[in-house]
Amino acid sequence: MIQVAIVGASGYTGVELLRLLINHPQVEITCVTSRQNAGSPISSVFPSLLGRSDLVFDPVDVELIASRAKVIFTALPHKAAMAVVPDLLKAGCKVVDLSADYRLKDAAVYEQWYQPHTSVDLLAEAAYGLPELYREQIQEARLVANPGCYPTSVALGLAPLVQGGLIDLSSLIIDSKSGTSGAGRSAKVGSLYCEVNEGFKAYGVASHRHTPEIEQTLGQLSGKPVSISFTPHLLPVNRGILSTCYATLTDKHATGELIELYQQHYRNEPFVRVHPEGELPNVAYVRGSNYCNIGLVSDSRTGRVIVVSVIDNLLKGAASQAVQNMNLMLGLEEGCGLQDLPLFP
Amino acid sequence: MIQVAIVGASGYTGVELLRLLINHPQVEITCVTSRQNAGSPISSVFPSLLGRSDLVFDPVDVELIASRAKVIFTALPHKAAMAVVPDLLKAGCKVVDLSADYRLKDAAVYEQWYQPHTSVDLLAEAAYGLPELYREQIQEARLVANPGCYPTSVALGLAPLVQGGLIDLSSLIIDSKSGTSGAGRSAKVGSLYCEVNEGFKAYGVASHRHTPEIEQTLGQLSGKPVSISFTPHLLPVNRGILSTCYATLTDKHATGELIELYQQHYRNEPFVRVHPEGELPNVAYVRGSNYCNIGLVSDSRTGRVIVVSVIDNLLKGAASQAVQNMNLMLGLEEGCGLQDLPLFP
Amino acid sequence: MIQVAIVGASGYTGVELLRLLINHPQVEITCVTSRQNAGSPISSVFPSLLGRSDLVFDPVDVELIASRAKVIFTALPHKAAMAVVPDLLKAGCKVVDLSADYRLKDAAVYEQWYQPHTSVDLLAEAAYGLPELYREQIQEARLVANPGCYPTSVALGLAPLVQGGLIDLSSLIIDSKSGTSGAGRSAKVGSLYCEVNEGFKAYGVASHRHTPEIEQTLGQLSGKPVSISFTPHLLPVNRGILSTCYATLTDKHATGELIELYQQHYRNEPFVRVHPEGELPNVAYVRGSNYCNIGLVSDSRTGRVIVVSVIDNLLKGAASQAVQNMNLMLGLEEGCGLQDLPLFP
Amino acid sequence: MIQVAIVGASGYTGVELLRLLINHPQVEITCVTSRQNAGSPISSVFPSLLGRSDLVFDPVDVELIASRAKVIFTALPHKAAMAVVPDLLKAGCKVVDLSADYRLKDAAVYEQWYQPHTSVDLLAEAAYGLPELYREQIQEARLVANPGCYPTSVALGLAPLVQGGLIDLSSLIIDSKSGTSGAGRSAKVGSLYCEVNEGFKAYGVASHRHTPEIEQTLGQLSGKPVSISFTPHLLPVNRGILSTCYATLTDKHATGELIELYQQHYRNEPFVRVHPEGELPNVAYVRGSNYCNIGLVSDSRTGRVIVVSVIDNLLKGAASQAVQNMNLMLGLEEGCGLQDLPLFP
Repeated sequence: MIQVAIVGASGYTGVELLRLLINHPQVEITCVTSRQNAGSPISSVFPSLLGRSDLVFDPVDVELIASRAKVIFTALPHKAAMAVVPDLLKAGCKVVDLSADYRLKDAAVYEQWYQPHTSVDLLAEAAYGLPELYREQIQEARLVANPGCYPTSVALGLAPLVQGGLIDLSSLIIDSKSGTSGAGRSAKVGSLYCEVNEGFKAYGVASHRHTPEIEQTLGQLSGKPVSISFTPHLLPVNRGILSTCYATLTDKHATGELIELYQQHYRNEPFVRVHPEGELPNVAYVRGSNYCNIGLVSDSRTGRVIVVSVIDNLLKGAASQAVQNMNLMLGLEEGCGLQDLPLFP
Repeated sequence: MIQVAIVGASGYTGVELLRLLINHPQVEITCVTSRQNAGSPISSVFPSLLGRSDLVFDPVDVELIASRAKVIFTALPHKAAMAVVPDLLKAGCKVVDLSADYRLKDAAVYEQWYQPHTSVDLLAEAAYGLPELYREQIQEARLVANPGCYPTSVALGLAPLVQGGLIDLSSLIIDSKSGTSGAGRSAKVGSLYCEVNEGFKAYGVASHRHTPEIEQTLGQLSGKPVSISFTPHLLPVNRGILSTCYATLTDKHATGELIELYQQHYRNEPFVRVHPEGELPNVAYVRGSNYCNIGLVSDSRTGRVIVVSVIDNLLKGAASQAVQNMNLMLGLEEGCGLQDLPLFP
Repeated sequence: MIQVAIVGASGYTGVELLRLLINHPQVEITCVTSRQNAGSPISSVFPSLLGRSDLVFDPVDVELIASRAKVIFTALPHKAAMAVVPDLLKAGCKVVDLSADYRLKDAAVYEQWYQPHTSVDLLAEAAYGLPELYREQIQEARLVANPGCYPTSVALGLAPLVQGGLIDLSSLIIDSKSGTSGAGRSAKVGSLYCEVNEGFKAYGVASHRHTPEIEQTLGQLSGKPVSISFTPHLLPVNRGILSTCYATLTDKHATGELIELYQQHYRNEPFVRVHPEGELPNVAYVRGSNYCNIGLVSDSRTGRVIVVSVIDNLLKGAASQAVQNMNLMLGLEEGCGLQDLPLFP
Repeated sequence: MIQVAIVGASGYTGVELLRLLINHPQVEITCVTSRQNAGSPISSVFPSLLGRSDLVFDPVDVELIASRAKVIFTALPHKAAMAVVPDLLKAGCKVVDLSADYRLKDAAVYEQWYQPHTSVDLLAEAAYGLPELYREQIQEARLVANPGCYPTSVALGLAPLVQGGLIDLSSLIIDSKSGTSGAGRSAKVGSLYCEVNEGFKAYGVASHRHTPEIEQTLGQLSGKPVSISFTPHLLPVNRGILSTCYATLTDKHATGELIELYQQHYRNEPFVRVHPEGELPNVAYVRGSNYCNIGLVSDSRTGRVIVVSVIDNLLKGAASQAVQNMNLMLGLEEGCGLQDLPLFP
């Protein structure tokens, strides 16, 4: 059994990592940390885990963590992550970082959208943890930057079109909708039940920090700079992201033709599922699983293609993708511990 | 008191018409019809109305209806509406039709998206019931075609830009999200609680019947043919539509400048509210009211403007807009009976 | 127009008072206070009110408030309320207090369930603001203690049985379920969307502070001390309380007989509606209104009666009942400004 | 691999059986039937299963089923189940029946609450499939009657008190709340999203068919006839049952003492979890799992104990309990294929 730690395990991503790793056949969780909950059993913070683990939250202490585990999941806010990751690597650990700190290759872009970067030297080394696009880099990485939730849904949804050169990149508009767990577990009025329930809104219009991350990936896939319109919305569900992507086709292609392209593109990918023509994804079809489901329609009236992709933001958008990355980094079977089918209804 | 009737009053639009008209100070409901519920008191079908009305559902009978009321709200499915509206007009009634049957001016377009039209001669006469754009026609109309819910949110959201010639019309993309009451009260698996709750999906992609209605209005406002991409989504809330509209600006305009334009444009409109810069609408801000709220952002990175507009689909998107139209047709104060503030939370 | 103030208007009860009073034909809001939001327009805190009021939050200042208004609604937490109410009364204002501070007649009981009472001398004078039971006292009161939400649903649900001596008082079990707005608008992890949505739990079992308030009212109605089992639960809806009350009948009575008794008992009450036999209330039937709906079943197998009563916790359970009390205190028509029909769906 | 069939697999229980059995390491699904969906791939009816199974729905044909599988799950409505179960047994299959048809030992009681029983001779033989209470009978059974969802939550919640003789059986009141998936996947107005969402109601008061099933089990545990008050409510969540049970203690016992008793009672049960004092269960703590969580409070003011138990109605209340029963019938490890942790949030 490989020993793993979760740093910052008291949020929604943390509890999902716990859920997945407790049942993972090849690893053993030996350390979990939480600033506010240090000293408490994890089952008192997450009663869903009652009886399944005797772990107690430790404070964040790099030496302690490194002495107990070989692979570390850092589920900290950005800025806090880059304060501990370099030391964890120095101590010989492999790290899957779920923050934004190592996702952007260009420190200047990071600093434009976030704040000063204090760990620039690791940016080149960090692998971007989207296995369907960067599997080989991940397999050899010490440090994996686990992608953002929105960027995962968009990159998988658009990769075949972008790599195939089928769309006008300047026409890209991405309208995304995320479940509320994406806002985290901290107490804010805007995340209260009565503020979210029976409500729906856009936020971060033309200013959301996942924009440069999406543009970086699509830029790498196309070999050209990409500039997108990206609008996130807050959805009154616990889990799920649905991204509706609009692009002008450079040539005419029927819906069936494009679906065939997608099915070919993803034929060896265990966690990407392409819907047949006439069927479109619903966030409910991936809930609780590591899947990304994709559907699309080619609109001959306007010459645009509309791609709809869905993931569970806490899983393929965070925790289960992190486990997929860990599996690759350790040479385990990529889907090990990730075979749960979606929970419907 | 003016006598009014509601034909097809057992759906969600019907109960909203009942709620508004029971409290309307200038009218009296004298007839309500329902095929399935004929003979039942309205309060047995809608216990929310218990003690507030002794009305009993009648079967649909044009003579009876016309003998009892002067203004008729027809809340029937398309096709069923045009089967009764001509006779109601012949009998001397004024009609606010909430179906799609008289919204499209061009019968050929109607027949392309719906089915054969059996009341073509009334199309020219029917006023399109969006008071903010067609107030004068409505005031003089015998027949008002009450707009679709999505088209209402889009037309109000885009009118200042389109009339001002500020956007490239070919760039228009509209990503809309509607609460589930828009799907009606008929028993379908797809509308079951467990299918909708904790789910989210696009539907009718590139094929929704509100597309030509939106294009007709924007075409009239711009004086040019307009072709849009329109994608509706099903939102797990009872009420509310939010439309996110994307368009390329023909010239640069800052967000504040465009908001100023909107505030000027709507300064005399009692039911359109424009949010100040930095604030965006939420469907929760209009729930239970006749308001349309609008916010926008100009994105200098991409040269696009993003407009977000929200309405309560059952009210400004259906029942309260119908009452606003009735008020105009009868020469009553336009906002009579429509002063309810939104219910939050 | 009578001038009124709302002290502590930035919570969910506050926004409901604002919504009701802005449209109330006999009063004018001249002062609203909020510690955290002092200086902000109310429409920036509650965008649902955009365009309907220019009021700006003031800090809490008794002199200022008393100089501006004749009737004061204090929507403060318990303890904070009794710190301002005595001075408001001294300044000649009438007060409707929505906190728990003046509800319990016996200071010792208050101190057992809450904390030391600092305004004991006003307890005898305060009228308990449940108009259906204490209308005359309210009409003559300077100070009305607006009832708790749970106690309102229970007292109205049980009054006919208790006053009629039809049940064994020692057998009373009350299982209540409340929407989440009852937990207020303060930022707490337990009130976050993801904690409440798709969840359901009991809380405060055998220890909730509304227990002695219910016992006091039932005790007054029966003339005997009453001790109940009361279990509140947190319901994943914004609004609504449903109380399921169980009691052993002292004699056999058929369901129809008891419903007849209830209909007689409440025949002159405009805001209590008794469902016919075979129909039971749903919180959705009273949403957005001042109604209490009641249904019941007599179970001959067990000799028990089961009474189900529902209210909107923010309205009949708080804000609209407070307005009903104000109307009585001012000699206005009791239902003035409270005629909204429930919003369904 | 043991071959299993699911008869009536197109409902919510059916899709959960599919989800569990596709991943079960010891069995292989060789036949699924559905009257309405015969001929369709299961992934077209349940897109959540896309890519994970090539099964196609067959019509219900006993010979076909028996030729393909050794263990049959019958997930049919009552009455339809007993029309096929006898033939399946005759054909040598083992059957886990998820309907109500074999749960009640006394055909007369069944006929009083349901309709005439056409398979009376099998009632004595059928084991009641609550492993925590009837493990040995299940291990030897050909036919297991999988318990109802409400009865499972109540029997596990009360067994220690009833077996220990600690409560007055005549005082038992059970107030239960169920998620909407319990109402099934058939298209009914009452199950529509807009009817259930933001609503809450009691139903089947004093007349729900699970009443005699609960009474039978508690009667067997106590050795005396038991008559209860049982009130189910419809909860606006997809999954989960919470039962709040009230009983008068025959002697005084502190909360901690009773919790100790429960922990002892269930110390060897892998799927029952007892919360420590001060913590109460939430349906969210068991979502997606086979767990039953129990918490309790002893109220010295009233002499009553309040027990709260929760399950996932589709799992421990149906599908996963059925798999647990299958495991026992086949001599497999009881928890095989049932190790999923609850999905939170």
